[in-house]
Amino acid sequence: MAETPDQERTVAGIGEAGVLKRILPRLRGADMLLGPGDDAAIISAPGGRFVVTIDTLVQDQDFRLNWRNGYQSTGYDVGWKSAAQNLSDINAMGAVATAAVISLTLPPETPVSWVEGIADGFSDAVRELGADHCALAGGDLSSGGELSITAALTGMIPGSELLRSGARPGDIVAVCGVMGAAAAGLDLLESEHDYAALGPSCSTVVERQCRPRPPLDAGPRAAAAGATAAMDLSDGLVRDAGRLAEASGVLIELESMALRAHLVLMGHKGLDLGAVAELLEREPLGWVLGGGEDHGLLATFPRETALPQGFVPVGQVGREKTGEGPRQRIFLDGQRYPSGIVKGSPEGFDHFSE
Amino acid sequence: MAETPDQERTVAGIGEAGVLKRILPRLRGADMLLGPGDDAAIISAPGGRFVVTIDTLVQDQDFRLNWRNGYQSTGYDVGWKSAAQNLSDINAMGAVATAAVISLTLPPETPVSWVEGIADGFSDAVRELGADHCALAGGDLSSGGELSITAALTGMIPGSELLRSGARPGDIVAVCGVMGAAAAGLDLLESEHDYAALGPSCSTVVERQCRPRPPLDAGPRAAAAGATAAMDLSDGLVRDAGRLAEASGVLIELESMALRAHLVLMGHKGLDLGAVAELLEREPLGWVLGGGEDHGLLATFPRETALPQGFVPVGQVGREKTGEGPRQRIFLDGQRYPSGIVKGSPEGFDHFSE
Repeated sequence: MAETPDQERTVAGIGEAGVLKRILPRLRGADMLLGPGDDAAIISAPGGRFVVTIDTLVQDQDFRLNWRNGYQSTGYDVGWKSAAQNLSDINAMGAVATAAVISLTLPPETPVSWVEGIADGFSDAVRELGADHCALAGGDLSSGGELSITAALTGMIPGSELLRSGARPGDIVAVCGVMGAAAAGLDLLESEHDYAALGPSCSTVVERQCRPRPPLDAGPRAAAAGATAAMDLSDGLVRDAGRLAEASGVLIELESMALRAHLVLMGHKGLDLGAVAELLEREPLGWVLGGGEDHGLLATFPRETALPQGFVPVGQVGREKTGEGPRQRIFLDGQRYPSGIVKGSPEGFDHFSE
Repeated sequence: MAETPDQERTVAGIGEAGVLKRILPRLRGADMLLGPGDDAAIISAPGGRFVVTIDTLVQDQDFRLNWRNGYQSTGYDVGWKSAAQNLSDINAMGAVATAAVISLTLPPETPVSWVEGIADGFSDAVRELGADHCALAGGDLSSGGELSITAALTGMIPGSELLRSGARPGDIVAVCGVMGAAAAGLDLLESEHDYAALGPSCSTVVERQCRPRPPLDAGPRAAAAGATAAMDLSDGLVRDAGRLAEASGVLIELESMALRAHLVLMGHKGLDLGAVAELLEREPLGWVLGGGEDHGLLATFPRETALPQGFVPVGQVGREKTGEGPRQRIFLDGQRYPSGIVKGSPEGFDHFSE
């Protein structure tokens, strides 16, 4: 009987040790004091402190294996996205990633090639996004009914840390990175427009949904430029800005003209949300305001600051007028948001809502 | 219409923000430089380095909600076990836990009280097991089809680190903590012996399966006493000792008489595996050799070392005679293991095996 080639086998077929042998050589990252293979890894912490964060992606919640428009998520996509969203959290602290530990839950029938893809995608995201100091320090394998990946990342703070709570009335609100592209990509994936027949504008936004590209130098650069607060844009500008506003005890006043200018700038970078919006009969500003998962960086700067390269102003910080929740702290063109100006997903994402 | 009391509601009913409000006040731990609520937490790293580890528990794989013998796992059990297994990995490095980040994946119908139990169990394990320096630093919530919990822990190394790779021929092999109790508990849970009718010996081992108690001071104490290697006993003595032996390039020669003495000592601590074995018609030594999840500490010491309190010798380190894998590196009473001497689960646990 001919043996099944490894690439076509499942994780149940090669067992835990076999899966580890396929994954570990693919996890290339920076050096560490002690790497995978012991009960824990040992990581350097310059300055005697470090940041730590954790994030999970679950099949059919955070990604689909088979999308409505025919696109099939690859292990590479999932590994990339897991790295990107965690690296973005480190970035948003003004920090630089130093280590990642990864826990994979795999159905026994998962193809080995899919798991190899996860490792390659994670590893490539770390390198291509520029997380040159991030070691791939270890992990854990579990069997389960649905595929999920959890990564915890640590980082060092080269200058000052960036918290959500430091924004002051009068500060400029600025964003580095794209906004709305991942949400447009999600809407395309969940549309009936056949993926194989999409033009380049459309496939670029699908790529941003599946393999987001957080601007990983933006956090430390914002800190060096004197930013007063910062936050990862993971759940949408309105929702995340509301959280920053609540943590800082302020209001945030967004300007739609600045957001439309951001859309034009994105077009120059090959992300033409207008073309996608036309196809789907949507309003691109809805994606910019409500769409998450781009993992850009939201930051506030004192008014006199020259914004660091790549940051675009989108509004200003206002004085608190109420003690209300995050949603009541966001204004758009002087009106409390949501104001019915745009269509889209105006309130951002809640994991347990319908 | 009367409102549903919060305790009876589901996570879908109260939403992501509602779940966080229930969990965060329950996560009591040590202070940290910056706690939950930002993109990442900030943790102190005395000595400019830290250890990091990650571990996941998945419903129906690592625990069942409803066991065959009628026992129902509580959220408290699951939270406790997640903390215990991660704290044990930190302990096995000779380290002291400094921070935990936790990611929960919850089916929307999960009762809020169950989630509160997870938080209480995690928090109580940290405190009751003595992880006094462990801060509960943040986390992540996801929706999913099956319940799972992933925790990543960091730790500081007060003295020397303990690796798996330092065992030398002639060293004494010793264990701190119990062995076999969690496996006996697992066999009881999967038996037809009604949980409600079990005597105290049996319910104690069930408790050890559901809420293991790793000896958290043993790692730093072993390091201070000059241990040459150490490892967390999570997958069974034979399997884990095989891994330590492979990492060190040695053999490990276990003595069944010493393991039987360990069984007697456990009886003195209220863990009478003999009584459980009689009920289930099993051989208790099988649990000691093959049973995982007790999270005791396996360590090797130079022969002249006075073993630290709580450590019991179980064998010695032999010179490598072969280049074979971990299973071929374990001997019991001079015979290569598995040798048919005992019944039980002689090869330990593989997540993807049948």
